Amino acid sequence: MAKKKARRQPAAAPEAAPDAAQLTAQDHKTLDALREMADGVVDAAGRSRPPHLDIPSRSLSNVRYNKAKRFIEMGRGTNRRELFNLSQAKSYMQTMLVGSGCKQLIQQGKTTSIRGLYYLLKHTIEGTREETFDDQADCDPIIEDVEVTLNALREELHVYASNRGSMVGNVVVNDSGDEIDCSRMGSGGYTIPSIVEPEVIRFVKVEADFVLHVEKDTVWRRFNEDKFWRKHNCILTHGQGQPPRGVRRMLHRLHHEHHLPVYCLLDNDPWGYYIYSVIKQGSINLAYESRRMAIPGARYLGLRSKDFERCSLSPSVTIKLNDNDIKRIKQIRNYPWFENKPAWKKELELMLRNGFKLEVEALISKDISYVTEQYVPARLQDEDFLD
Amino acid sequence: MAKKKARRQPAAAPEAAPDAAQLTAQDHKTLDALREMADGVVDAAGRSRPPHLDIPSRSLSNVRYNKAKRFIEMGRGTNRRELFNLSQAKSYMQTMLVGSGCKQLIQQGKTTSIRGLYYLLKHTIEGTREETFDDQADCDPIIEDVEVTLNALREELHVYASNRGSMVGNVVVNDSGDEIDCSRMGSGGYTIPSIVEPEVIRFVKVEADFVLHVEKDTVWRRFNEDKFWRKHNCILTHGQGQPPRGVRRMLHRLHHEHHLPVYCLLDNDPWGYYIYSVIKQGSINLAYESRRMAIPGARYLGLRSKDFERCSLSPSVTIKLNDNDIKRIKQIRNYPWFENKPAWKKELELMLRNGFKLEVEALISKDISYVTEQYVPARLQDEDFLD
Repeated sequence: MAKKKARRQPAAAPEAAPDAAQLTAQDHKTLDALREMADGVVDAAGRSRPPHLDIPSRSLSNVRYNKAKRFIEMGRGTNRRELFNLSQAKSYMQTMLVGSGCKQLIQQGKTTSIRGLYYLLKHTIEGTREETFDDQADCDPIIEDVEVTLNALREELHVYASNRGSMVGNVVVNDSGDEIDCSRMGSGGYTIPSIVEPEVIRFVKVEADFVLHVEKDTVWRRFNEDKFWRKHNCILTHGQGQPPRGVRRMLHRLHHEHHLPVYCLLDNDPWGYYIYSVIKQGSINLAYESRRMAIPGARYLGLRSKDFERCSLSPSVTIKLNDNDIKRIKQIRNYPWFENKPAWKKELELMLRNGFKLEVEALISKDISYVTEQYVPARLQDEDFLD
Repeated sequence: MAKKKARRQPAAAPEAAPDAAQLTAQDHKTLDALREMADGVVDAAGRSRPPHLDIPSRSLSNVRYNKAKRFIEMGRGTNRRELFNLSQAKSYMQTMLVGSGCKQLIQQGKTTSIRGLYYLLKHTIEGTREETFDDQADCDPIIEDVEVTLNALREELHVYASNRGSMVGNVVVNDSGDEIDCSRMGSGGYTIPSIVEPEVIRFVKVEADFVLHVEKDTVWRRFNEDKFWRKHNCILTHGQGQPPRGVRRMLHRLHHEHHLPVYCLLDNDPWGYYIYSVIKQGSINLAYESRRMAIPGARYLGLRSKDFERCSLSPSVTIKLNDNDIKRIKQIRNYPWFENKPAWKKELELMLRNGFKLEVEALISKDISYVTEQYVPARLQDEDFLD
């Protein structure tokens, strides 16, 4: 064992490392959970029982919409994974391996990407021709298994997703010791990091009245250029399409810790509605993270199917719905969280009747700054949102 | 004409607008070029000649590698586009339309995306059922035509690409009036905007010794977390894969205006080599922008095919070359700019002989921080680069 480690991990033996990183309270909590997972093996061995893990099931049948909490959450179903079961031995080993990799990361005070964790753990199992993981797709679900088993966010396991999305506006954050005034970030803005947990990002001053989240960086740029956030005292974010985890978590923290309303300006198409649904209710795939990601109080500010008439848009700027769009609209219509929402029903019906979709950029046909100077201010003033 | 404008552009008539934006010297230069393009029509009409435009050809046959300048540039070939030619009338109209859209943007002091420009100009031609543009793909090459005809960067026409890529390190910039100290940007960093021309971004203080450009944001994060840029007094950038125009232009300005060496840390695969080639020599598609984008002095710092042995990597972390990789390697080997570069020839031969590629993240199998603490410092110390 020692020999194998020597080849694989020259800087290993973190347990004994004299330069052990400063651990946060959260790190200690996560390490405790990881140790508990490992203790289960020792315990089972001591009692001559086959070691196993009970992993909460991430299948669709174990996911439900919680009407009281107003987000998607996991049920109590679990799947047992056993070491002494030929069909489960490998994934059991992989689960423990991911656990040990995360332990190493936390103890070293370092973080890595899912790609990095994969490389950290990938090796040929000694005395065999078997790889611990054949490829990334082999590793990703195991990372999710560990998250859900330990009830820890991926970020708490020191694994990060991509840095994507930017923020400007009347908010000052302390990011890893640096104070960043998002009202002084020029045209580029502050890149929202993948890990925005309180250990890394602390809010120093939040003077904004609300958050406006837009879908695309190109639209965000229009709002920033027009200094919309200054005129309306808000925070402006985007997530380059489907917002990555860091952006969702940032919105969640601003909403829950600082009670800021979150308004979403997205395209009038099934993809825009899906993005909204994920921001608001969470996603089916990551249902176990809804508690810290979903924002049931988020509001949909636009674009709406009725905007074609309301804003007197030209037929030139409409985009015909394709078969896939129509299928997606019908799926979304059946989401349980839209069940008692007549306004959404009406919206989706109208989109089907229109037979077209509208991008936020279509408003440019009125004027370059129509969206920042007329459309959004009017929606805000009339409180004309979808819930 | 006036009537049509009234419907299409409620905020139009920018010529007479009392709140005309403050134009920069560059804006005046670009406007002059746009006016000259329009004057050609008037002139031709005055002389009863058919109006035409001579548009530099962007075809492969008009692109060549300039050995003296060490980048890809366009030749002198042009294509004539005539109004009174049935097969060219529409693209002639589209070219003038894009010109007028850019003129409007500049005069309003606003910028937009290529998607925004498309929506700004899209409408049904009066008295017909013909659209000015059927879709975005119809508009994009016309934007490039206008760029190349006017010899203006897209950014100078007030059209931007996506905001992608981040920067940290020992550099202070003034972005649209805000002073941004990139050594105080926490874990997220400063988002490199799409437009980094001197009118928007001014360098206040450049104390770094060099720029390290890495391919992926996840690798960038490792370098930032390890405060590599502080230890080695550098600037750290990434472009999320193939760097967008803003990132290339930022590197170009740091290299040419501040004489900073630019080192590239990319994957040891055909895609990584292609990214390097674009940063260094420019791309065939955007050959007309090489002058302000290409960095012939950029150096390739790694990963290298010999790293498998040099770093004693495990076969587990290699990725087998597929047929497409092999085809691409052979193409790259024939790039004229690699012709007199025996080190590159050797590198590409070894990659073919290895039969595998290596991602930067593969170094994590040695240690999480092997890349920041050993690999890159060793390359820098030994000046072990590919040119």
